[in-house]
Amino acid sequence: MKALMQDRPLLISSLIEHARHCHPGAEIVSRTAEGPMHRCTYSDVHRRSKQLAKALQVLGVRNGDRVATLAWNGYRHLELYYGVSGMGAVLHTINPRLYPEQIVYIANHAEDAYLFFDIGFAALVERLAPALTSVRGFVAMTDRAHMPALALPSLLCYEDLVGAQDSHYEWPLLDENTASSLCYTSGTTGNPKGVLYSHRSTVLHSYAACAADGLAVSAAESALLVVPMFHVNAWGMPYAGAMCGAKLVMPGPALDGKSIYELMRTEGVTLALGVPTVWLTLFNHVDTAGLDPKKDLKLDRVVIGGSAAPRAMCARFESEFGARAVHAWGMTEMSPLGTVCNFLPKHAGMTTDERLDVLARQGRPVFGVEMRITDDEGRDLPRDGKAAGHLMVRGPWITAGYFKGEGGQILDADGYFDTGDVATIDADGYMQITDRAKDVIKSGGEWISSIEIENAAVGHPAVAEAAVIGVAHPKWQERPLLIVLKKPGKQASRDELLAFLDGKIAKWCIPDDVAFVDELPHTATGKLQKLKLREMFKDYRTRST
Amino acid sequence: MKALMQDRPLLISSLIEHARHCHPGAEIVSRTAEGPMHRCTYSDVHRRSKQLAKALQVLGVRNGDRVATLAWNGYRHLELYYGVSGMGAVLHTINPRLYPEQIVYIANHAEDAYLFFDIGFAALVERLAPALTSVRGFVAMTDRAHMPALALPSLLCYEDLVGAQDSHYEWPLLDENTASSLCYTSGTTGNPKGVLYSHRSTVLHSYAACAADGLAVSAAESALLVVPMFHVNAWGMPYAGAMCGAKLVMPGPALDGKSIYELMRTEGVTLALGVPTVWLTLFNHVDTAGLDPKKDLKLDRVVIGGSAAPRAMCARFESEFGARAVHAWGMTEMSPLGTVCNFLPKHAGMTTDERLDVLARQGRPVFGVEMRITDDEGRDLPRDGKAAGHLMVRGPWITAGYFKGEGGQILDADGYFDTGDVATIDADGYMQITDRAKDVIKSGGEWISSIEIENAAVGHPAVAEAAVIGVAHPKWQERPLLIVLKKPGKQASRDELLAFLDGKIAKWCIPDDVAFVDELPHTATGKLQKLKLREMFKDYRTRST
Repeated sequence: MKALMQDRPLLISSLIEHARHCHPGAEIVSRTAEGPMHRCTYSDVHRRSKQLAKALQVLGVRNGDRVATLAWNGYRHLELYYGVSGMGAVLHTINPRLYPEQIVYIANHAEDAYLFFDIGFAALVERLAPALTSVRGFVAMTDRAHMPALALPSLLCYEDLVGAQDSHYEWPLLDENTASSLCYTSGTTGNPKGVLYSHRSTVLHSYAACAADGLAVSAAESALLVVPMFHVNAWGMPYAGAMCGAKLVMPGPALDGKSIYELMRTEGVTLALGVPTVWLTLFNHVDTAGLDPKKDLKLDRVVIGGSAAPRAMCARFESEFGARAVHAWGMTEMSPLGTVCNFLPKHAGMTTDERLDVLARQGRPVFGVEMRITDDEGRDLPRDGKAAGHLMVRGPWITAGYFKGEGGQILDADGYFDTGDVATIDADGYMQITDRAKDVIKSGGEWISSIEIENAAVGHPAVAEAAVIGVAHPKWQERPLLIVLKKPGKQASRDELLAFLDGKIAKWCIPDDVAFVDELPHTATGKLQKLKLREMFKDYRTRST
Repeated sequence: MKALMQDRPLLISSLIEHARHCHPGAEIVSRTAEGPMHRCTYSDVHRRSKQLAKALQVLGVRNGDRVATLAWNGYRHLELYYGVSGMGAVLHTINPRLYPEQIVYIANHAEDAYLFFDIGFAALVERLAPALTSVRGFVAMTDRAHMPALALPSLLCYEDLVGAQDSHYEWPLLDENTASSLCYTSGTTGNPKGVLYSHRSTVLHSYAACAADGLAVSAAESALLVVPMFHVNAWGMPYAGAMCGAKLVMPGPALDGKSIYELMRTEGVTLALGVPTVWLTLFNHVDTAGLDPKKDLKLDRVVIGGSAAPRAMCARFESEFGARAVHAWGMTEMSPLGTVCNFLPKHAGMTTDERLDVLARQGRPVFGVEMRITDDEGRDLPRDGKAAGHLMVRGPWITAGYFKGEGGQILDADGYFDTGDVATIDADGYMQITDRAKDVIKSGGEWISSIEIENAAVGHPAVAEAAVIGVAHPKWQERPLLIVLKKPGKQASRDELLAFLDGKIAKWCIPDDVAFVDELPHTATGKLQKLKLREMFKDYRTRST
């Protein structure tokens, strides 16, 4: 029997309409590409995103057309989030840090109709333009006075486009499963693949972000989005912000420690979100300038995602900033929110060390994300905090496949997506990633976490960086090899390092051997290229232990 | 273009599956109809709701069949919430406080297939049974030892039914728009009408309840559900609880001040939800027993809904309990959550009086509820906190019509439902109810709030209760008449009362006359029957002022 509830679709345009009515005066503060700070409100974003939607119509943008951006976090980018998706087109946020050939591949694969760009990327766009086969026009996200001088046949000015329209516009009543936005994920192998989000998935994801046990974003918040808007929609914050009326603070291109700290101070930031690297930069600035964050800032929580939050980072936020580190985990394929590490009542009264043990986990799933861990045969493993297995996820904001069918059928028979991570889940639902599936070392039927050994190894004073890979072994199938880059001027022997690990990790996880290298291979985004390491060491024979 | 997200329906069964995996150990504490306290977990509720679903199948309950309950808040009622809706049937919670003939009308109108009841209602059920034409069986929600001796041909025992099944059961993958539950609303005129919720509406509503700016329910919470589970699904808390893993404390039939206070104390209740009447009972107990709530309790927030939260009540919770009163507003037709009164950053540093002014409002809409206020011609009125108009609502958990088409087409051309309330909305989105539409006095083109005058009049020391209705007036169409029940032994004249109102309400809102009565007519649930008053005074001619 069908229920008798109103048939109202979950739409991105409803988010900005809600913001306009319920928190019209809440602020969006942006550091602009042009230089100065810019202040506006959700009411302004609402009005201008409607003007933009009309301008896009005039440009001939139709339902489902892809409109690309190459831009930092700022109010015009936010207007594009609502204007493009709201009018039925697909916002395609491109990571400007990718190699130029990757950007070209992505834009052509997506068949982007227009490309909106920050003026800081003018030279890049000029260089790429000839190769962008589908782009009909390039829109500089600035006003007439700041237009870059570019040799482009179809260069447009954002403020001219928006200024030419009034805001009398009715958002179309779309099917909630309509595509709203597109984000490419660059795996370590093969071409980048597009994840195509829907209005429904975006709104549901926003609810999860606003949940008290999610990111707990609220109208009481001044939220600093250090995570870029080209990186999985800044973890959904531009949408969650409109849902709850949080003030949004947008750092633009200035992601250095000093600029971030100043924004936190002047805008009374209570919640900040970003990857570990950026917080290290912030710490460096605090050290160098001899600052007192607890005195200067109102920071309450720092959401750390993208890669595992180091224990020392969580501890420092707590002790020096009076802020709680909120460890979160997700993927581009997951919109991205999967788990958030919040405390339970049982954790009250714990010591700092015990609290940090909890924070080291990636957290508990928000409602909407189903998780299971499986062995190589796809059988469920126990949720005991010990068994590590393939982390499989399912839910309404998780991808069912990549754009244009790249990668083929990617879900298992039960509809689960393989995250490529190996993880444990404990009885309270806390998930902890132990390794990437392709990096785990399979030794005599047991799985050894390369990450666990690396984390232990970098604790040695002579080790600058450590990588662990599996190398073939006649009896055990694979055994771990520790590859070490030593700190300049520091020395450590194989035996000394292996002895150092003794007692820190299980006996059978201690590597069979140590290789010393002069440098370790990294990707453009700074991740270790274990694939390359495995090639380098594919003929390596360990010294038997 | 269709997006590429997973097609996962929003289902009530997913809530209890989530709870089982992510907060299996969180507790459900119930005061039972049999007497003793009962403790179980979401893991138990998950298992037993599956056993119940299998038992219902054996009883021949099919998709869409209505299964009724006459029960207080408790774990078995919670199992019915998940077991009945989860297996595809419709949970029909009946208010046992209704007149017996209303219960019979409702159960027959709903064509309930089975009736589950608390043993406290055994005598009532025995009396009603012959008139319940569709009910195939009556299930006493108890174990064999406590079965009531009833002369019913088809009396079943809940624990026997559940105990006969194992928990190997897969919830059906229903369409999310499938009917999940049914709740009748009894208007002041006509027969009660059924509101038929869906799985989708229930899950979306739960997200709103868990939002930091909603009720902010979380796993950190011990939530006392004083609001009954037969009253709009206890404001959605049984679902929100499973979504976030809040501990649920269920008072059973014991809603007296002492029992409620004891539950708060022994179960470390942090969040309590109920109507104003029950909190008055609680205050009385605190006064009588000379208790110190701040010392005894961990109460953080009290959600007050059902009718307007009196200012003095909000103040007392703050000063004496150290708890924040959270004013909320909704309707059976709205699942029920419409608005929640939370503070904004701008309210920081306000005096207690100013804070109470904010709390007097019904609050800001949660995302998912669109609101507008209109004049009699359906034109939008400004959101300036002054203009009062018909409060119209729209959204995915708001009814599109009543069960079996009762009441006909109830939405306007834009899909909005008329709440029957008159309200203002201010620039921050705060809504404040000023009157029921049928009670508002239309005087010379202006609307006068009867509630505003009544609230002012009861401030006079001689007034026990006051009611204001509109009476016909040759020039102004209608003018307010103040009807007063005096306190025993107290005196006040017409002119004295009108002079008392001067300065407290706008000049043109001061009633033309005062009528003194010996009693005021009330409904079974204690609401003033203004319809009856209007009949009593329909020939009244005011003394011209």
